[in-house]
Order: sequence, then structure tokens, then C-alpha cells
Amino acid sequence: MVRQFEMTLAPFKKGFHLVTSQILKQIGQLPDSGLIHIFILHTSAGLAVNENADPTVRADLDGAFDVLAPENQPFYRHTVEGPDDMPAHIKSILVGSSLSIPVTGGRLNLGTWQGIYLCEFRESAPARRLVVTVLC
Amino acid sequence: MVRQFEMTLAPFKKGFHLVTSQILKQIGQLPDSGLIHIFILHTSAGLAVNENADPTVRADLDGAFDVLAPENQPFYRHTVEGPDDMPAHIKSILVGSSLSIPVTGGRLNLGTWQGIYLCEFRESAPARRLVVTVLC
Amino acid sequence: MVRQFEMTLAPFKKGFHLVTSQILKQIGQLPDSGLIHIFILHTSAGLAVNENADPTVRADLDGAFDVLAPENQPFYRHTVEGPDDMPAHIKSILVGSSLSIPVTGGRLNLGTWQGIYLCEFRESAPARRLVVTVLC
Repeated sequence: MVRQFEMTLAPFKKGFHLVTSQILKQIGQLPDSGLIHIFILHTSAGLAVNENADPTVRADLDGAFDVLAPENQPFYRHTVEGPDDMPAHIKSILVGSSLSIPVTGGRLNLGTWQGIYLCEFRESAPARRLVVTVLC
Repeated sequence: MVRQFEMTLAPFKKGFHLVTSQILKQIGQLPDSGLIHIFILHTSAGLAVNENADPTVRADLDGAFDVLAPENQPFYRHTVEGPDDMPAHIKSILVGSSLSIPVTGGRLNLGTWQGIYLCEFRESAPARRLVVTVLC
Repeated sequence: MVRQFEMTLAPFKKGFHLVTSQILKQIGQLPDSGLIHIFILHTSAGLAVNENADPTVRADLDGAFDVLAPENQPFYRHTVEGPDDMPAHIKSILVGSSLSIPVTGGRLNLGTWQGIYLCEFRESAPARRLVVTVLC
């Protein structure tokens, strides 16, 4: 069985943002056992699962990804949309465009310290749209 | 319900290549609502979703991944298959071996600017084989 | 149809470890056609598919990821859990927290040279727990 719908997240500044509760609010009832797939319809942001407690993890991730994909590399040719655009495409591919998370007993089966991140790589981004597919 | 089949892509040179239409041609009819999973049966190439318009994005991604996983690092021990081989394994893990994309109304539910990339990391690679699984 | 269960892997030292047979032993019977999803319940380790033969690939991956996410970066603020902790979060996001692999004819449909890696990023980690979901 498949249930599928779109949702829109609040717009965020560049950085790694915990959005577990924002997503859960829009999902409604989950099945007893299955899988949830979340897909982001954009190429300069991504989705990830990581630490849900200490916000310095998310700040350090932002710093680390700026080192991994720096702005203004001399070989960049795709520069027309601003210095943060090509790094955003690189980071998006590194992080990935979708998540699949097990659903167990009507809840996301995440580890104690796991939460869902919206990884926003543009300095000034619109609200990001997601497609959620629940398989059970 | 599960539908599953293998397909082979045309061989590509090293780089990031848009293969959405090549994949769609081989998939045939898609369900009204579901998920498509595409898995690459190789360890020196990968699959990603990113920008489908400006080809300089794909050229810059190739350059950026060469910086992320350079050839001839002094600590490499796996060198017998050529200087591009160990970087290809690293890049393959960074990008990932599979994609899951929502299917809605009989079509891939991709964002306006999203396409499917074959990320080819070897200088001289054979045609890559994929396993496609459609869940609905 | 969904079958779902948890499993625990043996504890590993920091590095990339081939765990295909350890996972298969705990999975039991697989369907004729479907998808297996494996999710790790931790934020400082990851799962990947890559080369199952030469162990120097796995050693070089460990070295390469240490370069991608080095310890003791001056901008790190999340340092309370030790110098390997923040790099582990970064590497976990780069690699990913889950895998989806096609199941065909009652077996994992992996390429000839593909195996499943537990990517352990902590120096001294507990046994890692996985949630396995089989869809068919």
C-alpha cells in the first residue's frame, strides 16, 4: 500500500536544520510497519539524518561543508546564480536528495540521537517542497 | 506490488551525465503512485539527482569531485587498477549506489530542475548495468 | 508486504568493514522479488555498498575520509565527546544512514564486486544496531 503527498517546509537560512517535528506534524497517521520516503524537489538543498541534541553539531556541519565545497573555486564555470550556487549543487549531491526511514509501531524508527535535517545550502532560499511516500 | 528489471546504459566517459530520458525509455509504464528504486551494479560509478539544465553544473561537479578525491594520494595502497580507480571508489561512496524517486500520476515526480545523473568515475568504463525496482 | 526486524552487528574498530555475510545470516529467507532497506540507528557510523574483494580499498577509504573530515579543525565547537566525534558526524552524513538493495530470486541483487560496508567512524564504538525492512 502506498500513501503519498507533498508538503512544504518553512524557509530556512543556509545551514543544517532539525525538521523532524515539522515533518511529523504534516504526515499524520503512520502505519504499524513500513517505510517512509522523503524526497526534496530541489537541487541546492538536501536531506540527512543526524544528531538531534547539541546544536553545535549542526553549526560545525555547516562549517565542514563550506570547506568541502568552497565558493569561488577558480575552475567553476557555473557562476551566474551567485557564489553560493555551485557549492550548493556539490553539497546537495554529497548529502543526497532523499531519505528512507523505517516506520515501526506507528512511529519513525529513529535512534535515540537521530533527527531529520533539512540541509539548506543557499544563502537565501525559498520554502522547500518535499514529496513524502509511505509504503506499508 | 513489485516490478523489477535490469537495464544497461550507454557507456560514458568520466563525468556527470544526464540519463533521465535514457532511463525512462527503458522503464515503460509507471504506476499512478509509488516509488522507483534504481541501483547501480558497480563500485566505481554512482547515481545522483541534480540540475538538469546548465551543462556547466555537471562539468564543475566533475572538477569538484576530483578535488575531493584526488589521484595519487601518497597513502593509497589500492593502486593496481590505475590512478583513477581508488578515487572512483571514494567518489562512488560519496555519491551513493542507488536512488529512490517518487512516482506520481504515472511519472517520475522530480522537481522542475531535477534530472538523474550517471556519475562515471573511471576514465574508460564499460556500459553500466542498473537494477530498477518499481514499488506500488 | 513488509517484514521488519532489528539486528545488531559485532562491534568494530574505526574503519570500513565488509558485513554482507553477517547481515545475511540474520536476515533469513528473502522474497523472490523486492527491496531490502537497512537503516543504522546511530549518527557516527554509516552504511555503504562498495568493493568486496581487495581489503586495501577499505583501508584507503578510511584514509580518504580522514582527509575529508579531519580531527581538530579550528572551527569545531562540538568537541566534548572527543576529537573523533565531530568528524564521525560529518562522515556519517557523507556516507548516509541507510541502504536500499534490490532482492531478486531470493538473493541480494548485488554486482559481482559489491558488498555491504559498515562504516565505523568512532575509535571505540559499541555494537551498532540496524533496522531491516524487506518490501515485496
